[in-house]
Amino acid sequence: MYRKEIQVTTSHEGDILDITHQVREIVRESGINEGIAHVFVAGSTAALTTIEYEPGVLADLSRALSTIAPDSIPYAHDRRWGDGNGRSHVRASIVGPSLSLPVADHDLLLGTWQQVVLLELDVRKGRSRTIFVSVID
Amino acid sequence: MYRKEIQVTTSHEGDILDITHQVREIVRESGINEGIAHVFVAGSTAALTTIEYEPGVLADLSRALSTIAPDSIPYAHDRRWGDGNGRSHVRASIVGPSLSLPVADHDLLLGTWQQVVLLELDVRKGRSRTIFVSVID
Amino acid sequence: MYRKEIQVTTSHEGDILDITHQVREIVRESGINEGIAHVFVAGSTAALTTIEYEPGVLADLSRALSTIAPDSIPYAHDRRWGDGNGRSHVRASIVGPSLSLPVADHDLLLGTWQQVVLLELDVRKGRSRTIFVSVID
Repeated sequence: MYRKEIQVTTSHEGDILDITHQVREIVRESGINEGIAHVFVAGSTAALTTIEYEPGVLADLSRALSTIAPDSIPYAHDRRWGDGNGRSHVRASIVGPSLSLPVADHDLLLGTWQQVVLLELDVRKGRSRTIFVSVID
Repeated sequence: MYRKEIQVTTSHEGDILDITHQVREIVRESGINEGIAHVFVAGSTAALTTIEYEPGVLADLSRALSTIAPDSIPYAHDRRWGDGNGRSHVRASIVGPSLSLPVADHDLLLGTWQQVVLLELDVRKGRSRTIFVSVID
Repeated sequence: MYRKEIQVTTSHEGDILDITHQVREIVRESGINEGIAHVFVAGSTAALTTIEYEPGVLADLSRALSTIAPDSIPYAHDRRWGDGNGRSHVRASIVGPSLSLPVADHDLLLGTWQQVVLLELDVRKGRSRTIFVSVID
């Protein structure tokens, strides 16, 4: 088992960061040839998934998340806590915080157009995010 | 590898149970210092995710799931089987039955406001649910 | 660690394939008694989840995915690339490409009505799909 953290700073709500390169680097450093890489974001207003990292698709994904949890409706969370991020929590829980990827020959097995991304869903600008990568053989 | 089951009884459709404490206990019992904890709910009308366990957010999440699969529309599953839980199956498949969490120092690595939850999505009251927790190093 | 690929050909957008039997076979072949089976689809327009494999539920799930990312609206991805599969990318990212399942007694621990499925979300007919199954103890 080999674990390392990725630290990133996101810039705004809806920011989507391609972290594939950092995950690949950790896999290489681990020295593990065959196994799985588990990726997890700490926090309840961010999520992880894979996507083709192309600006059009990223905009389309953001719009779909707004369909599930619109910006314009009232949230019970916001009434209680005044954070204004009720929609962020909902979107994050539906997409999910964890992702596992196959590792072969010291690298990730991904589709050609498939990148690993962090979705920043919180409304607070300039958030620091910690992502844990665990490589297991 | 160490595995243990969590047995819970849910009370109603939309019930959301915080199982973080039980998962943490199993991690501690496992004696595994560093690794991952894999959590899985058996059954096709329940799901697992992480969320801030606060009544406002939980209500907001339930409403979002009703946007994806509304209560009020007809379901092909219900026409065939008369279970009345077509929406439950759909919501469960989109959120998903599995979750993996990093383990360090005999504990889960989670965000401060991030809890592990079981979503009861079935319409049948008083359902018993089995959750498998596998700790791997 | 034991890994094997499943190769399938899907027939159309919205095709849902039950791959439970193939995953079970790989678990058996692995000789691993207790552990987890990690399943991952390479590609950014397909997804994995569990569901009751019954035609009514499958149709209900497809309709819900059309609520999240409708067929009828314009997609930024399609404007840029003309693929016509902007909705496919969005749906795939929300459901997700990875799934982990508990293994006990050389078999998967699943609910009675819970099958492992591949969702073909791309618009291109007759796509070949590669699914990686990694069994870890």
